[in-house]
Formats: sequence, C-alpha cells, structure tokens
Amino acid sequence: MQTQTPLFRQVARLLEDGILDGEYTPGSAVPSSIWLSSFHGINPATARRGLNELIARGILIARRGQPAIVAPDAITALVASRKEELPAALAPLIDEATRVNMTQEELLELVSRVAESRGLYAVQG
Amino acid sequence: MQTQTPLFRQVARLLEDGILDGEYTPGSAVPSSIWLSSFHGINPATARRGLNELIARGILIARRGQPAIVAPDAITALVASRKEELPAALAPLIDEATRVNMTQEELLELVSRVAESRGLYAVQG
Repeated sequence: MQTQTPLFRQVARLLEDGILDGEYTPGSAVPSSIWLSSFHGINPATARRGLNELIARGILIARRGQPAIVAPDAITALVASRKEELPAALAPLIDEATRVNMTQEELLELVSRVAESRGLYAVQG
Repeated sequence: MQTQTPLFRQVARLLEDGILDGEYTPGSAVPSSIWLSSFHGINPATARRGLNELIARGILIARRGQPAIVAPDAITALVASRKEELPAALAPLIDEATRVNMTQEELLELVSRVAESRGLYAVQG
C-alpha cells in the first residue's frame, strides 16, 4: 500500500544530511561503499548506487580507487535542492490540517510554536 | 534503515481518512475485513487487525456477523487524535527548514503559500 523510499536513495539522503550538518566538509572524503554497506547492513551495489547518485548530481566527486570527496559547492547545491522539496513535503500536512478543520491562522500558529520548540526562533524585530 | 508503517496501521489510517472525508458516515458500515483484504491484496488477518484497532479506540462499533459501523462520535474523536499528531509530523519539516538556513518567518511564509495553493485560505479580516 505505502511505497517505501528505495534503499539507495536512503543512503544518498543520509550522506546529504551528513554534508548539510557539517559531518563531511567540502574537499573531505565520505565513507566508501564497502563501509556504508557494512555499517547499514545493505548490499555493496546499493551503497554504490547511492554514492553514484550524488556523483551524478555533482555533490560528490569520484576518485579512482579511493572514496569520493565532497564537492566544493555541495552545500549550496544541497540547500537549493532541499528547499525545492519543502513545498511537496508540506502539502500532506496542510491537507491534514484542513481535514481536522484548522484555519490557516491556527496552522501558522502551530508551526510557529513547534518551530520555537525546536530552536527555530522568530527573528527579534 | 527506514521503518515502514505496519500494514494493519495503514488499513486503519485509510478507514480513518474515509470517515473524516465523509465517505463512511456515523452509523453506516465500513468495508468488511474480507473486502479490505481483497481490495488491498493483504492478509485477511491484517485487515481484521486494522478494523480491531479502530473498534478498540471506539471509532468503529463491532457487529456480530456483519461489517462494523462508524461510531456516532467518531469524527470528533478522530479530529482530536489527528490534531495531537500534527506537532510530531511537523517536527521533521521544521528541522529541514533549519537545515537549509530558513528563518521562521520564511518558513511561515512558505507554509502560508502552500496552504493557499491547497485551498486552505487565510480568513479575511
């Protein structure tokens, strides 16, 4: 019924998170496909496919016989592509708010409250 | 890596959606476990478990030898429980907005824009 995100996409997503969170910095190496496959208990080909996706998108740079490195502009590229995904990710939550008869004002008030609770504070005027 | 929602929970959720969207009205029958299992291509025991969850929560009322019916106060109960789930569902999106360096103001502006695009309009002052 529900479709699950493919494993290779989940691998790519975790690496993206690592880059955005500063765990892997531009110019430094990300884990190898062997390491990823052993750490996550997945097929090496799946780990490789996740890495290859990021190489194809220019987020990682492949190196012969060594793990890929993070591209110099990886963060800018990732921030842009993640921002583009947000509206689609918000849509089901907005539909859910509509379903429980919330007004837009109540929804914004809730978002603001949850944002504060997670450290995303309103800028002081 | 990712954990998927159990099938029986997905069945229960679809029935909840059907009640909230007015497809199944209070006092009327929901599909039988046999129908649900055949329609979704799942085990009849899984369909039954989904129905039983809703019966245990008082959303559905079991009937001997016939499909369950929607409880009189099902909508009120579902709206309340769905509202309680919203903050937890919003949290990952707020973390994602933080990750891409959005301010709370930019996030609220985005939520408002996506809400308008999905028919959840701001109330006119």
